[in-house]
Parts: sequence; structure tokens; C-alpha cells
Amino acid sequence: MDYETPQFFRVIQYAARADRDVVDMVSGSPDWDPPDALREGLHAYADADPDEFQYPPSVGLKELREEIAQRRGVDRSRVVVTNGTGEANHLAMAGGLEAMSGDEILLADPVYPYYAGRVNFLGADLAFAPVAEDGHLDPDTVRERASEDTAVIVVNSPNNPMGVTYDAETMAELVAVAEEHDALLVSDEVYDHFDYSGRFASALSVDSDHYVATNAVSKSMAITGWRVGYAVFPDPDGPHGDLLDTARTRHMLTNVTGSRPAQAAVLHALRNTGPEYYEGVRSLLEARIDTFTDALDAAGAAYTDPEGAFYVMARFPDFPGTFENVERLIDEGGVAGMPGEAFGEARADWIRFSLTTDRVETAAQRLVDFFA
Amino acid sequence: MDYETPQFFRVIQYAARADRDVVDMVSGSPDWDPPDALREGLHAYADADPDEFQYPPSVGLKELREEIAQRRGVDRSRVVVTNGTGEANHLAMAGGLEAMSGDEILLADPVYPYYAGRVNFLGADLAFAPVAEDGHLDPDTVRERASEDTAVIVVNSPNNPMGVTYDAETMAELVAVAEEHDALLVSDEVYDHFDYSGRFASALSVDSDHYVATNAVSKSMAITGWRVGYAVFPDPDGPHGDLLDTARTRHMLTNVTGSRPAQAAVLHALRNTGPEYYEGVRSLLEARIDTFTDALDAAGAAYTDPEGAFYVMARFPDFPGTFENVERLIDEGGVAGMPGEAFGEARADWIRFSLTTDRVETAAQRLVDFFA
Repeated sequence: MDYETPQFFRVIQYAARADRDVVDMVSGSPDWDPPDALREGLHAYADADPDEFQYPPSVGLKELREEIAQRRGVDRSRVVVTNGTGEANHLAMAGGLEAMSGDEILLADPVYPYYAGRVNFLGADLAFAPVAEDGHLDPDTVRERASEDTAVIVVNSPNNPMGVTYDAETMAELVAVAEEHDALLVSDEVYDHFDYSGRFASALSVDSDHYVATNAVSKSMAITGWRVGYAVFPDPDGPHGDLLDTARTRHMLTNVTGSRPAQAAVLHALRNTGPEYYEGVRSLLEARIDTFTDALDAAGAAYTDPEGAFYVMARFPDFPGTFENVERLIDEGGVAGMPGEAFGEARADWIRFSLTTDRVETAAQRLVDFFA
Repeated sequence: MDYETPQFFRVIQYAARADRDVVDMVSGSPDWDPPDALREGLHAYADADPDEFQYPPSVGLKELREEIAQRRGVDRSRVVVTNGTGEANHLAMAGGLEAMSGDEILLADPVYPYYAGRVNFLGADLAFAPVAEDGHLDPDTVRERASEDTAVIVVNSPNNPMGVTYDAETMAELVAVAEEHDALLVSDEVYDHFDYSGRFASALSVDSDHYVATNAVSKSMAITGWRVGYAVFPDPDGPHGDLLDTARTRHMLTNVTGSRPAQAAVLHALRNTGPEYYEGVRSLLEARIDTFTDALDAAGAAYTDPEGAFYVMARFPDFPGTFENVERLIDEGGVAGMPGEAFGEARADWIRFSLTTDRVETAAQRLVDFFA
């Protein structure tokens, strides 16, 4: 598969050209409001002194790193502020591939396509561990697929595209697998605020030098275009302290530093946004999940129980999730989802629906009409 | 030299710890105001609809690319908006190294240290062409130093650290050298608004598929921390059209996209800032240049005639530009500059002074007192 060109645009463009009204459930961009404090923070920054418009430290504003470090319970020295989770994953994957023995990066199947594209771009070998029947990644499957050639293992919880959340035991086992193979686990936790199961556990809950935890406020504050993310690297004084050094150098020589208006506003928003904002968004999404899964039941579809993130993976009877069928569902059903085959082989028959639209009810009704 | 860790911080920190008042002429961060329209643009964006907070196109906001393309007289397809000139140079250098034959990247000496750091990070061989007596880069020297092993040549005009501007003939010849060796010229033009000679010429004035022009508004709008830059690649339908493709992929898999608040505000500022803003800043800097070079004359220093950017390279009698002497000048003279040796060998005896402070007069008087 050509992971270098993620296929989202292909489907979005097809839907936009359709001869009828279509509910877009393709993109992962939130449609809800950011915290009020984020807008306030950007207004305040727009009036700042000119010296606040100059280079922040390469690793990010000190106060922002401190705020992140305190929230995640780690030392500030381990935190590098990045241009979104995208760059955080890039730094972790590229650095892990260099530092660890082996030439292979192991991903879950189905996979967020950017991971696979990055593996190809880095010139690494690509390996996959298929998820279990329930949509979860079984650490034993990862253990079987991993080998001495495995340098990096990338996981994502709450998971895109499966919509499941990995618990503490799973995360501990995934870190253990990385340790067994002297590999680096990259744990992308960008959906950590979107856990409906109550079972989310960060890799940071595990005491180990074999992982990098990556994250961003892109989803949690509904600002995917602002590009404020971070990576938490192993203890700089530990056995894999070189990972942090290399990441800092790569970050400096690639980007110099991240964009300061976004960093300043996010710092203000982190400090001035209470839990009710995140709870409100979760409630909104839980209502959408209920509406949508009721429709899937009525349509006779199988689906993975949504526990996290904001995606539902569903399989319709005699309607595999090919690009062709997805285009048919757009034209004849008026609903656009992502073909399972865009995420790999393990769920090629499924279709991923993103709950990032206020028209979930319309989509639900249309699916019932089309399939039932 | 350890180009991976640019030495600016070492000097800035030394100056900050000094037991006396010190005029900081080390950093290249403007101390003047951005255009008013930039602040207006950021305020307007802070009130935008949530969908404007989501991912812009990976290559940058369409209107911003259009505005840039129109100003530079190129087709929009050739423009990639980047995270500052830093990323633009990274994309151009990494892509040129892959696409062109040879393993070497050729730089001017003295050099902006990030270029050299990036060459080492990319694993390329490093070669230098020393500047001429007058501080200009003689294309014939570049021609002599280049070989079939040269994949990329990086130049910068107006130049940091020399403070000179290359004219149209020089740029045409530099492009010709790149063509002769089947190399890629990377022309960093981030100081293009700071030309006092009237002779600045962009690489874009040359018709060739052998260069990438890089730029940003970091200096021209006094916002080094906002990270809005761009690269103009060769015609995608020409013999080196693959450079654009590779850069788009590298950009997407490294950063996904640039930060949208900064892009939106810069777009507004580009549309609503007249030439008087840029003229005003140039006048301010010309006055500082006069004040400072008068003092250098009085101090018996040699210096390169400032034609562009905002740096003055000076050599004091019996006072070579070592770190040791720079620290002595901080402690005993109360002025902090950058040691010439931080930029390479060709001007190791010189000291670079950045005119990014409103205390140039104080610094000038102190230099006279110290040296005269």
C-alpha cells in the first residue's frame, strides 16, 4: 500500500464532488469548540511585547514544559515540545531506529497510516501485529511478531482507527515486550482525554527506559492545526538517555523550534481550563456513540465497542470496506467513512466512521435506510 | 567544531551572568515591532470558527501560498510553507543530498552554524569555500572548491554573518556552478528585506532547475518565534521535479503541517502591510549601522562594509575574535558579540555584532572607550 499518501483526501474529495448531500465521517478533525481560555490566551499573546515574538527555547517554552511535566509526573528535562504528535512520533521513531539494534519497526494492523508512511520514509522494515477479534492489541501477538530485528514498536491508545482503549496491564506488557527485544516502545497517547472505559493507562505508568510517550493538545483542545505536541523521553541519565539528546538535535536542525503563538495560547489554556471542558466533550461524544451504534445495530452491522478516541469500526453484511463500496455508500447512502483497507489488512472488510460531525443522527438514519 | 550545538547560548549565558551591565549584540532576534496588521491578524484568528483551527493543507494555507507565489513570481505549485527557514533549508538540503549525485554539501566560510550542523546530522561530507577579502563569496572560489562529489551548495544573501549582499551576477554564477556540477543550490534569502545596497538579487531571478530558494517572515516581520517560512522548489514538471515531491512527503511525515494561527496572521499581515513598514525598519538599522561603524573607525577596527542583514563583522587590532577575548570584552568592555571562530576559520579573528538592540549607541561608546 502507498502509505506515503494517506488516502483521506481521496475519500473527502470524492464525497465533496458527490451529486448529493453527504455526511462527512472521514476526517479526524474535531467539530466542537476549543476551551475559551485558548482564545483568551491567543488574544493576550497578540498584544505581547515584541521580545515574546522571538525564538522560544528549541525544546519549547519553559513554563509549557513545566506544566506538561507536572501533569504527567515526570521531570521537565524529559519533555520536548514538538510540532504536534506528528513530529513527536517522528523524533521517537527516527531516534529509536538509530539507537536500538535492528532495522524493523513493528506496528499494529489496522494502523494509523502516517506511522506506516514514516516507517517507509525512514527506510526501516515494516512489520505488523494484527489486533484481536475484540479490536484490542494482544501483547502476546506483539511478542510473537517481534524479533531481534525489531528496533521500534509503535502503539496508540485510545486507538485510531479501532476506537478501543488499552488498560494498564496491556501497557505494562507492551513495555515488557520492548524490553525483551531491546526495542523502543513509542506510545502515542493523543486521544488520552477521550477514554469512555475508565481504563486508559499511559506508558508513563510503567517504570522503564524503553518507551517514549507522545501526545498533543490537537484533539483534547480541538486544534489539530495548531501543532502543539510533546514527547516524554527516557531519563537522560539512564541507559537510553542518548534518545533525548538525539531528539533535541534532530528537532533543532529540522524545525529550530515550534511556533510560539500556539505554545503561548496552549499554556494559558492548560492553566485555565477545568475538567468540565473535557467532560463536556466526552459527554457529547458518548451521545454520538449511542446514536450511531443504535443505528449499526438496526442495520445489522458488527462493530467494535467504542471505548476511546472518536472512531467506530463497523462491518456491514456483504458490504466489505473497499474504496469501491465506500464510494457507493457516499453516492447511494449519503454517508462518507474511511475504507478499512486504508488501514491495513486485518480490518480490510470494515469501515471507519469518525464521530466529528454534528450530523451523526442524520448519518445514523441514512445507514439504517441503506442497509436495513 | 561542534556545529550540533550552536554556540550562541554559551555567549548569551556568559553575558547574562556578568557582574556588570552588558549590551547584548549576540542574538539575531529583532528588537523592533512587528507590523500592526500581524497583531490584527492574530486577534481575528483567535475569534475564528473552530473549523479554522483544524489541519491546514500540509503544504500550507492555500491563500498564503498564493500570496507568496504572486510576490515571488512563481507558480503556487512550487511553494511549500514550512516551519520557518530552518525547515525550508532542511527540506532543500536533505532532498538535494538524496537527489543529486555526490555526498558533499559545500558551504561558505564563515558560515551560519546551523547549516554546518545540519550537514553533519545528514551524514554528508562538509566542504567550505572561504569568502573573499571584501566579505563576498566569489563564485570562482565556489567553482574551485566544488567537485563531482558536491550534491548541494548553500548560500545566504544578504549574508549572516558577513553583512554583505550578493548581486544578480553573483547569484547567476552561483546557479551556474551548481549546474556545472549537477548540484543543487540552496539560496537562503531570509534577510531579503534588509538590503541597504540596492543590489540584492534572488536566485529566483535565474531561470534554472538547479536551485531552491528559501525564505521566511521571521526577520522581515520581526517574529523569529512564529515559524512561518517557505521554500520555492524547481518546476514540478521539469528535470528535478522530484525534489518537490520528496520535500512534500518529508514535510508531511515530519510535521504533518505548520502551525495555523501563525500562518493565518502572517497572511493577513502580508496583505495589509505597506512598504513603509519595511522602509522604516531599514532606516532604523541604517542609523544603527552608521553609529556603530563610526565607533569602529574610532576604535581602529577593520570591518566589512554592511550592505545587508543586520550584522557587522569587525576585527580589532591585536584582539582576535576568540571565545576568550569575547568574554573579556563582555567583562571589561560591557559589549557582547559572537566570536568569529564560531562561524568557521576564514574570519576566526573577527567578532560579529548584531544590531538588534536599541543600545547601539551605548555599545559604540563602550567599544571606543575599550579600544581607543
